[in-house]
Amino acid sequence: YAVFHPTGGKIGMVNGLSVIGDRSGLMLPIAAEAAPAQSTREGKIIATGKLGEIAKESVQNVSALIKKHTGTDISQYDIHVQFLQTYDGVEGDSASVSIAAAVISAIEEIPADQTVALTGSLSVRGDVLPIGGATSKIEAAAEAGIKKVIIPRSNMKDVMIEKKYEEEVEIIPVDTLSDVLENILIEGSKKSKLVEKMKAIGTAVTKVPEGVNNSYNTPNKS
Amino acid sequence: YAVFHPTGGKIGMVNGLSVIGDRSGLMLPIAAEAAPAQSTREGKIIATGKLGEIAKESVQNVSALIKKHTGTDISQYDIHVQFLQTYDGVEGDSASVSIAAAVISAIEEIPADQTVALTGSLSVRGDVLPIGGATSKIEAAAEAGIKKVIIPRSNMKDVMIEKKYEEEVEIIPVDTLSDVLENILIEGSKKSKLVEKMKAIGTAVTKVPEGVNNSYNTPNKS
Amino acid sequence: YAVFHPTGGKIGMVNGLSVIGDRSGLMLPIAAEAAPAQSTREGKIIATGKLGEIAKESVQNVSALIKKHTGTDISQYDIHVQFLQTYDGVEGDSASVSIAAAVISAIEEIPADQTVALTGSLSVRGDVLPIGGATSKIEAAAEAGIKKVIIPRSNMKDVMIEKKYEEEVEIIPVDTLSDVLENILIEGSKKSKLVEKMKAIGTAVTKVPEGVNNSYNTPNKS
Amino acid sequence: YAVFHPTGGKIGMVNGLSVIGDRSGLMLPIAAEAAPAQSTREGKIIATGKLGEIAKESVQNVSALIKKHTGTDISQYDIHVQFLQTYDGVEGDSASVSIAAAVISAIEEIPADQTVALTGSLSVRGDVLPIGGATSKIEAAAEAGIKKVIIPRSNMKDVMIEKKYEEEVEIIPVDTLSDVLENILIEGSKKSKLVEKMKAIGTAVTKVPEGVNNSYNTPNKS
Amino acid sequence: YAVFHPTGGKIGMVNGLSVIGDRSGLMLPIAAEAAPAQSTREGKIIATGKLGEIAKESVQNVSALIKKHTGTDISQYDIHVQFLQTYDGVEGDSASVSIAAAVISAIEEIPADQTVALTGSLSVRGDVLPIGGATSKIEAAAEAGIKKVIIPRSNMKDVMIEKKYEEEVEIIPVDTLSDVLENILIEGSKKSKLVEKMKAIGTAVTKVPEGVNNSYNTPNKS
Amino acid sequence: YAVFHPTGGKIGMVNGLSVIGDRSGLMLPIAAEAAPAQSTREGKIIATGKLGEIAKESVQNVSALIKKHTGTDISQYDIHVQFLQTYDGVEGDSASVSIAAAVISAIEEIPADQTVALTGSLSVRGDVLPIGGATSKIEAAAEAGIKKVIIPRSNMKDVMIEKKYEEEVEIIPVDTLSDVLENILIEGSKKSKLVEKMKAIGTAVTKVPEGVNNSYNTPNKS
Ligand SMILES: [Ca+2]
Ligand SMILES: [Ca+2]
Ligand SMILES: [Ca+2]
Ligand SMILES: [Ca+2]
Ligand SMILES: [Ca+2]
Ligand SMILES: [Ca+2]
Ligand SMILES: [Ca+2]
Ligand SMILES: [Ca+2]
Ligand SMILES: [Ca+2]
Ligand SMILES: [Ca+2]
Ligand SMILES: [Ca+2]
Ligand SMILES: [Ca+2]
Repeated sequence: YAVFHPTGGKIGMVNGLSVIGDRSGLMLPIAAEAAPAQSTREGKIIATGKLGEIAKESVQNVSALIKKHTGTDISQYDIHVQFLQTYDGVEGDSASVSIAAAVISAIEEIPADQTVALTGSLSVRGDVLPIGGATSKIEAAAEAGIKKVIIPRSNMKDVMIEKKYEEEVEIIPVDTLSDVLENILIEGSKKSKLVEKMKAIGTAVTKVPEGVNNSYNTPNKS
Repeated sequence: YAVFHPTGGKIGMVNGLSVIGDRSGLMLPIAAEAAPAQSTREGKIIATGKLGEIAKESVQNVSALIKKHTGTDISQYDIHVQFLQTYDGVEGDSASVSIAAAVISAIEEIPADQTVALTGSLSVRGDVLPIGGATSKIEAAAEAGIKKVIIPRSNMKDVMIEKKYEEEVEIIPVDTLSDVLENILIEGSKKSKLVEKMKAIGTAVTKVPEGVNNSYNTPNKS
Repeated sequence: YAVFHPTGGKIGMVNGLSVIGDRSGLMLPIAAEAAPAQSTREGKIIATGKLGEIAKESVQNVSALIKKHTGTDISQYDIHVQFLQTYDGVEGDSASVSIAAAVISAIEEIPADQTVALTGSLSVRGDVLPIGGATSKIEAAAEAGIKKVIIPRSNMKDVMIEKKYEEEVEIIPVDTLSDVLENILIEGSKKSKLVEKMKAIGTAVTKVPEGVNNSYNTPNKS
Repeated sequence: YAVFHPTGGKIGMVNGLSVIGDRSGLMLPIAAEAAPAQSTREGKIIATGKLGEIAKESVQNVSALIKKHTGTDISQYDIHVQFLQTYDGVEGDSASVSIAAAVISAIEEIPADQTVALTGSLSVRGDVLPIGGATSKIEAAAEAGIKKVIIPRSNMKDVMIEKKYEEEVEIIPVDTLSDVLENILIEGSKKSKLVEKMKAIGTAVTKVPEGVNNSYNTPNKS
Repeated sequence: YAVFHPTGGKIGMVNGLSVIGDRSGLMLPIAAEAAPAQSTREGKIIATGKLGEIAKESVQNVSALIKKHTGTDISQYDIHVQFLQTYDGVEGDSASVSIAAAVISAIEEIPADQTVALTGSLSVRGDVLPIGGATSKIEAAAEAGIKKVIIPRSNMKDVMIEKKYEEEVEIIPVDTLSDVLENILIEGSKKSKLVEKMKAIGTAVTKVPEGVNNSYNTPNKS
Repeated sequence: YAVFHPTGGKIGMVNGLSVIGDRSGLMLPIAAEAAPAQSTREGKIIATGKLGEIAKESVQNVSALIKKHTGTDISQYDIHVQFLQTYDGVEGDSASVSIAAAVISAIEEIPADQTVALTGSLSVRGDVLPIGGATSKIEAAAEAGIKKVIIPRSNMKDVMIEKKYEEEVEIIPVDTLSDVLENILIEGSKKSKLVEKMKAIGTAVTKVPEGVNNSYNTPNKS
């Protein structure tokens, strides 16, 4: 049963991508909702089924980042993640950025662009790490009427889509969660503020200070 | 042992529908009760047996929605769900709207119409998602004396009931939890107030703002 | 080892009934005790062995009803249920009314009539639902010297006891938990007050209001 | 390794009895200690090994009774139970009165008589219920130098000890936990006060009031 | 990899003894650390691996004793126990006194004598109970350069060490935890104070009062 | 997919080392993040996959040390550990110092030197204990462009690297966690302060006081 609407924006709904069987790509619509926590002690992550584990992983990674960069304490919420179209053998991205995006859309009540699909793994530090089956996923998205596909920058070199899809879908490489939100959330003042705060995310490379003696010493060095 | 009374209204009792074996439809009477929570920390969902998991799923989805839209904190309650007539091999709807309706009827103490049966899956955002075996379920309901069957709108196209049932039972397509409550709860002021609050549920589609540059940009776009 | 005393009243002790093997009936003496909860957070239900699960189910159902109708917060108690005579293969009633009665007797410190035996399943709304093996159970009770057997009203039609037992035992059909307590607890002011409060239990059938338009409407009805 | 000292009194140490293999009796020395609870929330019962479960059962049953009758809140304690001499295949009494006695001795700091051995099962209402292997246990106790053996009254009819043991050991039948404590704890003011409080334990049989109409009535009685 | 230093004193490090395979003795160096508890509710015992269970047992037994006799509430700590040299098939003492000693050394910050090795089981009442393989353990200790070995007094009769070891190692029999600490902790004021408090440990034998009627009576004695 | 950048400094990212299969060495990049705890009760350690257990062990050991020596209460944090490049059959160091270093880098927000790799096991007292496969690990590090490898001092005697690697990589032996931090964290004032506090770590050997009578005495010494 198709639950797919590639038009406009919807709060708490994003189009993820997965692979199945012989590496065919598949749309993976995700719904998320956040409600004030039932328990006075801490919010829960409620996600069932085979993909429940990657949902929990995703929410755990993104909650650390949200807490740290926006001040929003998502432990005050019970977060519900639901996959609206799964099949036996479907494999989702571990710590999926799609799930992270759906949850943020639900909590912040900012609509997510239904013409966009995403794939990528979120690291605990907010980087978007590479995934498998990038090409198959992009093609499945194009077939479904999707206009833009967000993928990890490190997967760009893997992508070889057929000519017939090139015209139909725009591929957007990203490095961090902040880039993902920039490209999936519908424009507006709430979105701008959020993306601004999240810009700090990502593993910046510090240059080692000049002139410091970098020959480390330990007692009894041999 | 039949526990079935297709007449009048009863608090906390609804007629769900399930399938069994070779896709035969089956009445699935459900009883629900809410009592002030035993634990000072949080309310529990108590549902045993094979269908216990879908009961928990249903209550979790509906509790998020109730909390958000009516302010009722159902974590203050221990919610009991009981299936009064189950058989080996029975399969219920995942995140069943029937269970959600029984729980709401019990908490709000609004009677549920015993001449109505329901089937449908509740999404975490309050949409009623399609289920399987719609035709078999409607026929089983008709056989049991039911007058109206509530089904997900997206299942309407699947329904092909025999002529002999057409006269006997009215089919009511719904989109959201709000629609379900409108059609299952007995008329009265408590019902009207509740349905009004729940009208906000559902995944509204936002039109993307005109005039905004929707060509997304990310650093180093290729 | 017989622990059976069919005479007088005892607090916290009731004679339940079970079946075993080839549907032979069996006495199932039950002892219950309630002590102020050990944990500051919530009371526990302590019941071991094969029948431990039905004990927990019974106490959960009855605790909801007690809380709601008498105000007694049984979560302040640790409730202990013990079966004094079990055998391999014994099968008790799910959510047994016998256990519920023993627990209420213990908490309220009202003696239970030892000349009475009971069988029945307690629904979450306080109805006494039908069980199996009614005839065998009544006969086993008679053999043990029991004078009255309480059974669910919906099982009355199943009962066919031998002529020799007809004279010895009185069969009492019941509909709700309130009826059960009326017939098992020993007369006195404590009992009267309790039964009075519990009378509200049971799934009353509301008549649908006259004159209301019961043709439900939903947007886009087909 | 014998850890057995059949002389004098020791706090927290009692001589239980068990059976092994072909129903041979065996001494089962038990050590118990109570320390202020580690957790701020509730005390624990710490007992490992095969007999750990019966230890927990015993402590749960006796804690309900202690709380109710002496006011001592044993949930403020972590209770440790240790079996000092176990073998593969050893079987202890379920909800053993020996363990209950050791725990009470430890909490109240009243020495237990080392010349006494015990066997029996404690019901949740404080009755001492029958056990198996009474004769073998008494003989094993006599062999070990024990002077008195406490057994459930309902086992008295089973006992047939050999003439050579009759002179050596005194058999003491008991009905309740109060009787057990009377016979195992060393005389002194602390003991007297405790036994006095515990005398209320046991399932007293209430006589049904005279002149009351005992013909029960329920609506629609058939 | 040998982590063994038989010289001087170290906080939180003791030399335990174990057996392996065909009853060969083996050094079992143990490290322990106590840090203020992470959880506001209670301290944890963190010990992994095959010997993790005996570590937990040991800490539970000793925590009851420490709480009771020194007032130190070790539930305010997270206690970490680590075995620095284990092999498949190694068997440690249940409720090992070595672990207890390491933990006390860490909490009290009193160094433990590295020239001493220990073996023994700690009862919940603070007695040192006998263990197996005493001779093999002493010999392994001697081989490793250990000067003194602490063993349970009840194992003294089992010990038959070869003449060549007699000169090298001193065997010290103990009865209680207090004796163990006296012999393992390095001399100083902190040690003296601690040992003094712990002297109350151990199962003192009370003499039964003279002149009391020790013929117990129970109602209906037969 | 290589996630490896052997240049500059990054907060929360360290290059660990592991072995796989036939003792081949392998880079094991580790990411860690600390966010204010979700639960009001205690922080969690979130680490999934096969190496999740050694991650938890590492964080537990280091949290005891951090709490004790820096006052930082890491139980106020949820700590996330992620392995960015694992394969079936990979084996990490138990209680890995690499994980400990990544976590400290994340909590203290001090960059870790990306040109350095580490291997070693952290004891509960802060010592760096020996590991296996030192040579293979060093060679794998050199192959990946690493400039310095930190190893446990007790492994120095095992190391035999090929001539071609000798010029490329500097081997740094360490004894304690403090040494590890000295060599992995990027120079700056935050680093200096931290290393200073951690210097107390390690198992200092106390000299036994002179002139004390070290002949221990116990009652009844034989
Ligand atoms: Ca923008
Ligand atoms: Ca330097
Ligand atoms: Ca209406
Ligand atoms: Ca834009
Ligand atoms: Ca009456
Ligand atoms: Ca209407
Ligand atoms: Ca007396
Ligand atoms: Ca009456
Ligand atoms: Ca001394
Ligand atoms: Ca006496
Ligand atoms: Ca330096
Ligand atoms: Ca000395």
